Amino acid sequence: MNIYIIGIGLIGGSMALDLKLHYKEATFFGIDSNEDNLEEAIELGIIDQKAAYKELINADLVIVAVPVDVALVILPEILNNINEDTLVIDVGSTKLPICEALANHEKRRNFLATHPIAGTEFSGPKAAIKDLFQGKTNIICEVEKTAYLQQQMSLILFQKLGMRIRYMDPKSHDKHIAYVSHLSHISSFMLGKTVIEKEKNERDIFDMAGSGFESTVRLAKSSPAMWTPIFKQNKENIIETLNEYIVNLTHFKELLQNDKYDEVFNEMQNTNRIKEILK
Amino acid sequence: MNIYIIGIGLIGGSMALDLKLHYKEATFFGIDSNEDNLEEAIELGIIDQKAAYKELINADLVIVAVPVDVALVILPEILNNINEDTLVIDVGSTKLPICEALANHEKRRNFLATHPIAGTEFSGPKAAIKDLFQGKTNIICEVEKTAYLQQQMSLILFQKLGMRIRYMDPKSHDKHIAYVSHLSHISSFMLGKTVIEKEKNERDIFDMAGSGFESTVRLAKSSPAMWTPIFKQNKENIIETLNEYIVNLTHFKELLQNDKYDEVFNEMQNTNRIKEILK
Repeated sequence: MNIYIIGIGLIGGSMALDLKLHYKEATFFGIDSNEDNLEEAIELGIIDQKAAYKELINADLVIVAVPVDVALVILPEILNNINEDTLVIDVGSTKLPICEALANHEKRRNFLATHPIAGTEFSGPKAAIKDLFQGKTNIICEVEKTAYLQQQMSLILFQKLGMRIRYMDPKSHDKHIAYVSHLSHISSFMLGKTVIEKEKNERDIFDMAGSGFESTVRLAKSSPAMWTPIFKQNKENIIETLNEYIVNLTHFKELLQNDKYDEVFNEMQNTNRIKEILK
Repeated sequence: MNIYIIGIGLIGGSMALDLKLHYKEATFFGIDSNEDNLEEAIELGIIDQKAAYKELINADLVIVAVPVDVALVILPEILNNINEDTLVIDVGSTKLPICEALANHEKRRNFLATHPIAGTEFSGPKAAIKDLFQGKTNIICEVEKTAYLQQQMSLILFQKLGMRIRYMDPKSHDKHIAYVSHLSHISSFMLGKTVIEKEKNERDIFDMAGSGFESTVRLAKSSPAMWTPIFKQNKENIIETLNEYIVNLTHFKELLQNDKYDEVFNEMQNTNRIKEILK
């Protein structure tokens, strides 16, 4: 079995590490625009060898884990290069643009659009870790557009990774994920910015930062190269979430300004419900 | 040695658990407005027995770990009840109001104003955990207003808890902490609110929430009873931080609206510096 990982970072690399345990006979090939990443991935035992797009005709499985703007460019080309049985999976954080871009591709049935809800704030081959996907949800979009055999192959694959499957149309995915993931990243980046701008003395931040600040600002360590194209592709939904977030923050500020502490209390108590929701 | 813990929740309870290992001969007394908390604290081995304010004359050490509005009311009374050698420590998240309230108290020199930068999003005696303070910073305010012997006693105490000490005036404390802690809580609460309001189907939140959302929304599980009085006491500083946060979020939104993705990238890259600051 020939497994090709295109983009050997946190997600692609972590998938390779887990799949190696389940497909022991497989050869893992890597393609990455960054030559250093490829060398590093070989050293770390993530892939067996480097490869080129024209070799994809030999691929049984191709996992595309690149920034979402790059995916739009290379996925049609990847589909052009595969054989009729190859399964091609992408794992990007936006789903509507890629589903639209491939809608009329003659190899559309070899492609499965997914979004594994898993990750850390780190990036690159060194960020790859085992068991990243265990117990996590994988959102699969437009499953009906993927051929039956490739569907089956992917379900076995995700089962081996320990993932739960949730099916969703790409438009709903992008709308929901703007709230539950993309907004979190912006709230965290802007929190980090606000504190850095104010606290010219970085020692003060370090000394006074508790686990609470570290937790809310964790996502501000994320890769701009990965996130800029996500925000671009999901712009409309994200602007909507930002508007609502800003309205809520402004309202909370006004409650404080007007000394309405009973309402301040209620705002927080109502939101405490997130405890049960996430349990 | 008689140690009195007033308010047996996350902070008071965790301090008691650690101090028990270091002051094995001491008796730990508990005072709490909630009788159930006291019973629970005895069952959990956090305190040895219940006590009353009038018994504080026997106290060597009093740790006051109550909501900051309650602290303003009970601390003068506590100081009225102690003996001349007792050390009284408060651990609240705002320092200027309590320092002002006690400035002219005849037992001011028995009091030390501190803010241990440690905690979790949980509350109550069950939230008490061992080693919560290990390696954390304790901000001490107006140390010069505490008598030398009580200063020494407190330094030994915090050393046993494994804490680093940072001295700061209460006004600066409240200003810095608004950025590094209080704003984080509001950003998290309002993020939780925005998502809950939008996602009427809670299953969608649960399915799509990754570790990133969980991390940014963690503080939205915090106790409104604890946080409302903190926001009230630190209102002016917090409104300033909220204004700056809202300006930054609005600017980011406008960059997206105007398709200025190079600047979106730069905003994130500049904030990535938080990685080094927190290291």
